[in-house]
Amino acid sequence: MWEIDKKSKQPIYRQISDQLREKIMKGEYTPGSVLPTERKLADQIGVNRSTVVHAYDELTSIGLIERKRGSGTKVSTQKWGISPAGSPNWKAYVDSGAFLPPHPLIQKIHELSHNKTLWNLAGGELGPDLFPGSLLKPQYDKILGPEELFEDEDPQGYRPLRETIARHMKVTYNVDTTPDSVMITSGAQQAIYLMTQCLLSPGDAIAIEAPSYYYSLPLFQSAGLRIFALPIDEEGINPEDVKTLYQKHRIKLVFLNPIFQNPTSVSLSEKRKRDLVDMCRSLSIPIVEDDPFSLLSFEGKTGQLMKKMDESGNVLYLGSLSKTVGSNIRIGWLIAPKPVISRLMDARNQMDFGLSIFPQLVANYFMRSGKYEEHVAHLVSELKNRCDVAISILKRHFSDFLTFHEPKGGLYIWLKLKIPIQESRLFHQAANNKVILMPGSVLGASEGFIRLTFARLSKEELEKALEAFRKTLIQLI
Amino acid sequence: MWEIDKKSKQPIYRQISDQLREKIMKGEYTPGSVLPTERKLADQIGVNRSTVVHAYDELTSIGLIERKRGSGTKVSTQKWGISPAGSPNWKAYVDSGAFLPPHPLIQKIHELSHNKTLWNLAGGELGPDLFPGSLLKPQYDKILGPEELFEDEDPQGYRPLRETIARHMKVTYNVDTTPDSVMITSGAQQAIYLMTQCLLSPGDAIAIEAPSYYYSLPLFQSAGLRIFALPIDEEGINPEDVKTLYQKHRIKLVFLNPIFQNPTSVSLSEKRKRDLVDMCRSLSIPIVEDDPFSLLSFEGKTGQLMKKMDESGNVLYLGSLSKTVGSNIRIGWLIAPKPVISRLMDARNQMDFGLSIFPQLVANYFMRSGKYEEHVAHLVSELKNRCDVAISILKRHFSDFLTFHEPKGGLYIWLKLKIPIQESRLFHQAANNKVILMPGSVLGASEGFIRLTFARLSKEELEKALEAFRKTLIQLI
Ligand SMILES: Cc1ncc(COP(=O)(O)O)c(C=O)c1O
Ligand SMILES: Cc1ncc(COP(=O)(O)O)c(C=O)c1O
Repeated sequence: MWEIDKKSKQPIYRQISDQLREKIMKGEYTPGSVLPTERKLADQIGVNRSTVVHAYDELTSIGLIERKRGSGTKVSTQKWGISPAGSPNWKAYVDSGAFLPPHPLIQKIHELSHNKTLWNLAGGELGPDLFPGSLLKPQYDKILGPEELFEDEDPQGYRPLRETIARHMKVTYNVDTTPDSVMITSGAQQAIYLMTQCLLSPGDAIAIEAPSYYYSLPLFQSAGLRIFALPIDEEGINPEDVKTLYQKHRIKLVFLNPIFQNPTSVSLSEKRKRDLVDMCRSLSIPIVEDDPFSLLSFEGKTGQLMKKMDESGNVLYLGSLSKTVGSNIRIGWLIAPKPVISRLMDARNQMDFGLSIFPQLVANYFMRSGKYEEHVAHLVSELKNRCDVAISILKRHFSDFLTFHEPKGGLYIWLKLKIPIQESRLFHQAANNKVILMPGSVLGASEGFIRLTFARLSKEELEKALEAFRKTLIQLI
Repeated sequence: MWEIDKKSKQPIYRQISDQLREKIMKGEYTPGSVLPTERKLADQIGVNRSTVVHAYDELTSIGLIERKRGSGTKVSTQKWGISPAGSPNWKAYVDSGAFLPPHPLIQKIHELSHNKTLWNLAGGELGPDLFPGSLLKPQYDKILGPEELFEDEDPQGYRPLRETIARHMKVTYNVDTTPDSVMITSGAQQAIYLMTQCLLSPGDAIAIEAPSYYYSLPLFQSAGLRIFALPIDEEGINPEDVKTLYQKHRIKLVFLNPIFQNPTSVSLSEKRKRDLVDMCRSLSIPIVEDDPFSLLSFEGKTGQLMKKMDESGNVLYLGSLSKTVGSNIRIGWLIAPKPVISRLMDARNQMDFGLSIFPQLVANYFMRSGKYEEHVAHLVSELKNRCDVAISILKRHFSDFLTFHEPKGGLYIWLKLKIPIQESRLFHQAANNKVILMPGSVLGASEGFIRLTFARLSKEELEKALEAFRKTLIQLI
C-alpha cells in the first residue's frame, strides 16, 4: 500500500523512496527480492515513470537496492549479507570518490615482497642493508629539547630544513634558490599528488615518458587527466614530441624523470635538456623535473639540472631522500615559484597540516652534518658494485635471452627479452622459482621488458636471484 | 623571509630592494605576480611604510616592478621581454583544482601567532611548555638499528604501533578492535581528508555540529559537500536533528566531536550518545567520532565512546596525539571496517605512500612505555590549573561582559558576549593590546562568541592576557 500525498512539501519521489525504504526495513521486501518494474509501480501509484526512476536512483545510490540490466530491480543482498541490519553499505560508500586501486600486478608484487625468502628484483627502493641507520642515530640523538620539537607547525616545512635544502641545491647543483621557494613534502609522491590536485583539472592533458614509473601508479588516471606518452631513446625523450603533443592536445604539464630514469636508467642528453627548456619556455608549459636519482652517478657526474638552465621559472624541481637515504623517511622537496607554493600549501592545510617534525629534524641534522655526502659516496660505490655483478652475469649467461644498456647510475637495469614470453606466465613462474620480477607493462612498456633492481639484494643474493631468473627463462622457452 | 639589519650601514630601503630583487631573480616572485602592499610589507618587516615606498620606487625606476593605481604592485613582465614570454601563467594554473584558501581571519591569526610577544588565546593547540620533549627523548634513543627503521612501508601504518593503539583502545575505553582495523594517519586531519575524498562525492550532504572546529577549515567546502548544521545545547547535539536532516537532505555522514567539543567544550550526554548510535543505525548513516580530547577530563571520567556502543560498525573512530602530546608529531588513527580502510589506503598510496617511520616509532615506544599515561595525568592537572585560573578571573572581572559554562575537560572556554561588539573591531583592538583572540564566527557561530584557549599560556601569561582582553572590552564598549 502506498500513501502518496501530492500536496505535501516533500517531493513525490522522496515519499516513494521513504516508504519503499520502510517496507524494506520492516521486511516486506526481503534482501534479494524483486521490486516492481518502474512502469508497473508508476501505474500502481499513479505517477510518472520518471518519478519512480528518481526514487529508485536514490535508493540505488545508498546501496539499498540494485538495478541490473535485464533482471530488474532487487533489494540489495550485500547490504544484509553478513553485516547486521543498520550497518552502512560500505560498498556504496567506498565507490564514491576517485581513487583507483593499484595495478593488480603491483598489488601482487607488494604482497610477495613481504615474503623475505623470495629474492626481490622488482621493488623500486634501496635494500635494508643500504639504510644508514647507524649514521642517522647520532642525528636524532641531537634532537634536543621541547623548543625545537615544538617549532610551530609550518605547512611549507621546517624552516631550517628548507634552508639546508636551499644550500644543498646551491652546493650540489649550483642552483640558486631561497628557503621560501622550497616546500617539504612526504616524499616526491606527495608533491606530485599536490600538483595534480592544485595545478590541473580533470580532462587536462599531460605528457610523461614512456615507459615510466608513473604508469605504475593510478595517480594521474584518478585525477581524470589525459595522459600522453613521450617515447624514450638512448638520449631520453625528444623535445619535438612535446611540441607535437602541445599542438595536438594542448598538454598543460610535462612530468619527467630526466636523470637515470625509472625504469630505463637513461638520462636526457645535455642538448635535449636545453632544447626542452627552451621549447617549454616558448610554449609556456611548466616542466616537472622529478629527480630522485641524480646523486647516484657511477661516473661522478650527471650533467646539469634543467632547473639550472631555467630562467623563466618554468621548471618545478622535485628532490627526495627516498633513493639516497630510504623511502621510509618520507622526505621530499619541491622548488617552485611562490604562487605555486602557496596554492599547494592551501591544499596541504586541508590534507594533513604538514609533515611531522621528527623526520624533518633528522633530515636536517643529517644533511648538515657532512655525513650525508659521505653516506652517498659509500652508497654509490656499493650500488656500482652490485650493478657490475648483475651486468657481468647478464653478459655471461643471458645473452641468448635478452639485451640491455649498461646504466651509468641509478638503481635499475632495463631488460628487453629477445624471445616473446607472456608476461604473466613469466611473472608467476619466476615467483615459483623464488624471484620477484617487475614486468615492463606495469611501467607502460609493450610486452617483453623487465625492470631489474640491483639495489635491494647483496651481491651473493643477486647471483642466486639471477640464476633462478635464468632457470625460469629456460623453463618457459 | 626578510633579513633586515637595522644597524647596518646600508639604508634599510636598500636592504629591502636588494632582497626583493634577489627574490625576483631566484624565481620566488615570477613575472606578473603581485607583491605585498606597501603597508603589509612594512608590517611584516617591521618598518615604516615610507621605507617600503622608497624601496618599491627604486625597483620601479629600474623597471623590475610596476605599480598601477588600484591594482597594486607587480613584478614587471616587460623587463623579461625575451625570456619571460615563457614563464607559465601561474595564475591560470593555480586556479585549477578545488582547494579553497583558509578563512582570512584564520590566516591573520596564523600570521600573528609567529609574533611571540603577543599572548595567544586563539590557537587550538597545547603550549610549548606542555610538550613532553624530555619524555620523548629516551623513546627515540631506543630506536635502534636499520632493521627497525627500515620496516617495509605500510600505507596502513607501522604494524607494532597499530597493535599498541588497539591495546590502548581496549585498556582505556574498553573498545575491542584489531590492528587490521586501525589506520595510522598524519593527524586526525588526514583521516578526515581521506574520508571526504573516498567516502563522499561532490554534492553529498553531511551534518556537523554548530559551532564546530570544522568551520575553520575549508575542507568540506573544497570537497563540494553540502554542509548542514546540528545545533548544540548543554548536552550536545540533538539526535532528532540528525533524523530531520536525513529526511530533508539525505545526509550521508555525520562528523561529530562528542567529548569536550571544540570550541564549546560540551560533551554529548550518555543518553544522547545511545540515541544517536541507534538513530544512525536505523538510518544506516555512518558517524565519525572525532575524539582528540577524551583523555583530557578534569574529573577523571568522560563516559563511554560511541564506538563502544556501536554494534553494527556504524561508528568510524578518530584518535590523535595532537592534544595529548603535540600537534607537531602528526600521529592520528582511524578505526573503521575493512572496506573503508582498504579504500582509504588506495587513496593514500597515491597521496604520500604513508607516514614517515620516525614519528610512528617514537609514538609506539612512548605509548608502550607507560610514560604516556603518566604524562597525560600531569598534563591534565596542569590544564585544570590553568582553566581554574582563567575561570576565576573571568568570574571576578568579566561578569559584566560575558557568560560561559565551566568546561569539565579539554582546552577551551566558550565565551558569549553580553554586549554586541563587531567581531573584526574586537579582534583588531585586542591585537593592538597584544592579545590574539579567536572570534566565534570563524567556527560557525553567530556574532558575539569567542573561543578562549587556556592551554597555550602559563598562569602568569593567562593573567596578563586576560587583563589585556578586559582592557579591550572596556575600550570598545
Ligand atoms: C621517478 C620517481 N619519482 C618519484 C618517486 C616517489 O618517490 P618518493 O619516495 O620520494 O615519494 C619515485 C619512487 O620510486 C620515482 O622513481
Ligand atoms: C575536533 C578536532 N578534530 C580534528 C583536529 C585535527 O587534529 P590533528 O592535529 O590530529 O590533525 C582538531 C585540531 O584542532 C580538532 O579540534
